Amino acid sequence: MTSSRLIEITDADDPRIAEFRDIRERDLTGRENRFIAEGTVVLRLLAGAHAAEGDFAAEKVLLLRNRVSGLSDIIEALPADVPIYVATAEVLDGIVGFHLHRGVLALGRRKAETGLSAFLERLPQRALVLAGCGISNHDNMGSMFRNAAAFGADAVLLDESCCDPLYRKALRVSVGSILTVPYCRQSSDLDLLSAMADRGFAIWSLSPNGKVDIRDVPALERMALVVGTEGDGLPQNILSRFGSVRIPQAPGLDSLNVATASGIALFEMAARIKRI
Amino acid sequence: MTSSRLIEITDADDPRIAEFRDIRERDLTGRENRFIAEGTVVLRLLAGAHAAEGDFAAEKVLLLRNRVSGLSDIIEALPADVPIYVATAEVLDGIVGFHLHRGVLALGRRKAETGLSAFLERLPQRALVLAGCGISNHDNMGSMFRNAAAFGADAVLLDESCCDPLYRKALRVSVGSILTVPYCRQSSDLDLLSAMADRGFAIWSLSPNGKVDIRDVPALERMALVVGTEGDGLPQNILSRFGSVRIPQAPGLDSLNVATASGIALFEMAARIKRI
Repeated sequence: MTSSRLIEITDADDPRIAEFRDIRERDLTGRENRFIAEGTVVLRLLAGAHAAEGDFAAEKVLLLRNRVSGLSDIIEALPADVPIYVATAEVLDGIVGFHLHRGVLALGRRKAETGLSAFLERLPQRALVLAGCGISNHDNMGSMFRNAAAFGADAVLLDESCCDPLYRKALRVSVGSILTVPYCRQSSDLDLLSAMADRGFAIWSLSPNGKVDIRDVPALERMALVVGTEGDGLPQNILSRFGSVRIPQAPGLDSLNVATASGIALFEMAARIKRI
Repeated sequence: MTSSRLIEITDADDPRIAEFRDIRERDLTGRENRFIAEGTVVLRLLAGAHAAEGDFAAEKVLLLRNRVSGLSDIIEALPADVPIYVATAEVLDGIVGFHLHRGVLALGRRKAETGLSAFLERLPQRALVLAGCGISNHDNMGSMFRNAAAFGADAVLLDESCCDPLYRKALRVSVGSILTVPYCRQSSDLDLLSAMADRGFAIWSLSPNGKVDIRDVPALERMALVVGTEGDGLPQNILSRFGSVRIPQAPGLDSLNVATASGIALFEMAARIKRI
């Protein structure tokens, strides 16, 4: 039964829920692969990932008391050793440091990342991946995963200069896709893309000045779309070494933002290989 | 000369720059078609719109003193009756209420909007437009305009329930496209789309369950893409009355966000009619 495993929290300073204290301020600090999941959709995906014994595990859940009844199926899906804490709105707001109207939080943990080679070896022979270099904006990171999920990408590859996809805002913007699309974040941009090229990936770097129109990219068994930062874009050594693609657009304009651009380009590539 | 027209502000309470006081807090209040433009790119577009005697005029400019020399061409493009105020970083931060590291602000005014009929009459015979119904998120609004500009749309039509595109954040996210793509915000969703249909526009409402694959939309002389709120999407009376399109995607997922979805759909439609 759901109700018997609920643990009431009445004091914002209770050490059992310390990880949820002032989450806004602590958002940018590293936490040994731990992360805060917010909202019903993301909690459901986390519970599913936990049950599947994949890359993610739920460690604890903190709910607004009156949200419990609507979440009983998710709660029941979580093993008994994952504590479910509940609190009133007043206590919950005192814990997190602002008004949390959705009232659904969880602490998750990502298992240690394998090396890049092992990650790439696990990809299917027919593969479409999205790679990001220097993506530092959490909104853009979240949107990239959402796009990857929408268009059936097999993985997201990130260089070591990208922000952590597990930041609270990135996870929220991804609508939980960060928990469902396998990803890897390590290596320099050049090493990352070279490792992919070595394994047969056609590397297409997206740039407003890319050589090939995105609509003319040939269908191949292994394809990677690479996007860079919104400000500077991809560095010249990347653009000159690998294939580059452009999204044709009206002249004289600032390029599309990276979230939209990655969506358009991934849509086109997924269409080319008939994934959608 | 640039320097002779600069007006030094040394007191954050100076009434001449009162419109810039605490702009973050006042962002959501109506201001009789006045708006705050931020950053060099947006100021340049505002100056250009002013010079072209189009829909927008610049009323005053407030700059960080050490930004002036880099902006002299924009300053010179503005008529002499537009005051250019300058301040030190300390005074400027005191005025706006936070640290404004870009140091470029302007107060703009949009001229009174014409009626919907007059607006539609001015559109070219061959026209591609983006319409929004119930768009309340400022990021999405800004991105929609950026996409409209990127793919050469002739106008953006918004129903009366949409947020004001001139909100500070929407304008910033649009990278100033709100000042360059003609728009109109009035009428209910149904009246707006009916008025367009009456003038020969093929109306394509975007929905995850849309009947036609976006790649199969026929090229026509007048085409409108309609997007709704991210949460509820477009109401059923709109979807059933007009044509509906979908962006094919992996099953079982939350739909793409409206910024990305409008970008993909507009890209496809612009490609169909060979605008890009």
